[in-house]
Amino acid sequence: MSRAEIEKITTLPYAAWVEPADERQIVLSTRLRLARNLAGRPFPNRLQDAEADALAQEICEQLRACEGSAAFEGWQVLRLDDLLQAEKGVLLEKHLLSRDILQHPAGRRLVVNQAQSLAVMINEEDHLRMQAILPGLQLTAGWQQISALDDKLALGLNFAYDQQLGFLTSCPSNLGTGLRASVMLHLPALHLTNKLEGIFRQLPQVGLTVRGVYGEGSQSQSGLYQISNQITLGYSEEEIISRLQQLVEEIIAQEVQAREWLRQNRLLWLQDRIGRAAGILANACLLSSAEAMEHISILRLGLAMGLCQPSWQISWRELNLLMLSVQPPFLQAAASKELNEYERDEARANLSRGFFRE
Amino acid sequence: MSRAEIEKITTLPYAAWVEPADERQIVLSTRLRLARNLAGRPFPNRLQDAEADALAQEICEQLRACEGSAAFEGWQVLRLDDLLQAEKGVLLEKHLLSRDILQHPAGRRLVVNQAQSLAVMINEEDHLRMQAILPGLQLTAGWQQISALDDKLALGLNFAYDQQLGFLTSCPSNLGTGLRASVMLHLPALHLTNKLEGIFRQLPQVGLTVRGVYGEGSQSQSGLYQISNQITLGYSEEEIISRLQQLVEEIIAQEVQAREWLRQNRLLWLQDRIGRAAGILANACLLSSAEAMEHISILRLGLAMGLCQPSWQISWRELNLLMLSVQPPFLQAAASKELNEYERDEARANLSRGFFRE
Repeated sequence: MSRAEIEKITTLPYAAWVEPADERQIVLSTRLRLARNLAGRPFPNRLQDAEADALAQEICEQLRACEGSAAFEGWQVLRLDDLLQAEKGVLLEKHLLSRDILQHPAGRRLVVNQAQSLAVMINEEDHLRMQAILPGLQLTAGWQQISALDDKLALGLNFAYDQQLGFLTSCPSNLGTGLRASVMLHLPALHLTNKLEGIFRQLPQVGLTVRGVYGEGSQSQSGLYQISNQITLGYSEEEIISRLQQLVEEIIAQEVQAREWLRQNRLLWLQDRIGRAAGILANACLLSSAEAMEHISILRLGLAMGLCQPSWQISWRELNLLMLSVQPPFLQAAASKELNEYERDEARANLSRGFFRE
Repeated sequence: MSRAEIEKITTLPYAAWVEPADERQIVLSTRLRLARNLAGRPFPNRLQDAEADALAQEICEQLRACEGSAAFEGWQVLRLDDLLQAEKGVLLEKHLLSRDILQHPAGRRLVVNQAQSLAVMINEEDHLRMQAILPGLQLTAGWQQISALDDKLALGLNFAYDQQLGFLTSCPSNLGTGLRASVMLHLPALHLTNKLEGIFRQLPQVGLTVRGVYGEGSQSQSGLYQISNQITLGYSEEEIISRLQQLVEEIIAQEVQAREWLRQNRLLWLQDRIGRAAGILANACLLSSAEAMEHISILRLGLAMGLCQPSWQISWRELNLLMLSVQPPFLQAAASKELNEYERDEARANLSRGFFRE
């Protein structure tokens, strides 16, 4: 694979969820991940580099059998050894790579389709980590995609499976279904009205877990949260997905309610917050990541509630791209060099101002 | 005098210094005030209302003799009894009235020329408080104006004067020359670089005093300070004025130096502050007086240093008008009603956004 081809995937601030699925944009994206291992072979952490490489070859050959399917159009195989540091950062940011796989790149691969919506990490913690990323809330569609890929691969690969335990995985926390389904939610109104802590407290009781994206805990200024199943064993894939679906729908309803409450009771205050966010993003010359995300979050809320000024000319696509672009790996990739924190703050502000100019 | 004529003076956010005298705009305005009393008559606080009124008539008649002079063109006499509450606030803000004279409006007058650059308060603490307000640093020109008015009035009025003490005044702190000369300075760079405290500490030693305008002490976020002579006795008018002139020139040099230091050492930080100030003034929906003044101060600095974006289309005149307009009395006058703090913050933000729209 040529450098130019690699860069198409590694430098552009693009993700499958950049194109909005829904006007409210409360759910940004749905991700489904299946962990699989080949029967009778050591887990990746026990493989010599040459063995890992041979095993990766074997899996890639089987992946070629899937080339026909629409979802896997234009797929590429990236050797982790070939990637520059900045590119690894971008792929991490896009959730196409994990920190784990970057620890030891030899014999590791990333297979990804053109739309960057379907990917397979080879020799991460498990031999295969298949992943589907879809815009909006699409748990069922995502499950169908990832399941179809799994079925196709199973025709040529012998997956490690135990009648009692289900699919065997390197870490016991993934045993059984090997499925991790997660949904990225933007909950600015629940954040502004301090309702998140109460909502998140119930999640473990139904086997779900939450983490702040770009910020810790329920105080994440970005308003972004990823909710996923914690338990992979003892429930069917359909049960895991339907439980997550139900809970996410409940949270969406609460976010919608909180937005309505703000409109009825704090409209001017909210318009002020939105105006200031736009004013700062359009004019600042130094912008930290946390501050940028806080303002982008407020603008997303403004856009969803129809409270953005037409003169700002902001679309969902632009705001989503801005949200990606201001992250350090994309800034580094755009600058084609390592940037220190101050240089990143400057580059981030330049980029943000550019988004607000015609 | 008709209501419409009164309103020309009392509702428009205009002051003599709105038209800038100097591109750097470090000195906004120069004010000179002379206190005079008629010989053999009780001070205003000892006058019955009818006596005060008769005395005011007498002074006004003598003022008519000055009508010919250019500086006193289009002068008007306002009876304080005729003014609405909001109008009194505006005149206070313009430094044409004092809090003292508003305590007891009966028999009190304000005489003011069309340009609002020359005024006489009648029966404030003293029978006459003549005042000249000029844009920029114009102590000598101001002294000539006020002195010419004093000379003309002295032709027809017998001012209380003692060979030993000089002009007699109601309060001993004004004895002698009866002169208070003051200069309004905008010192944002000295404020940002924390140099003001050291500078202000020397002022009492040379008989000068300072007060923050729109904010107390050297921490005034508006960067505006008024420096004036504290001592009226024992020095000639020329000595008082030349001492103030010299000190103000020194402070201007230090402010210029601090601006240059910021340009050399904190340029991006400063551009960021300027950009944010413009972004917030152009987009906020709720704006406190202190916050507005802080942003306007930074924008003034940006304009002086050539660091404002052309797209903001800000001129000195507009910034000076904005600085006046956002003050509560002008907001009240524009709304034609009493506004509470929250309503003022909303009106202030509306007005500020309007200044940034074409």
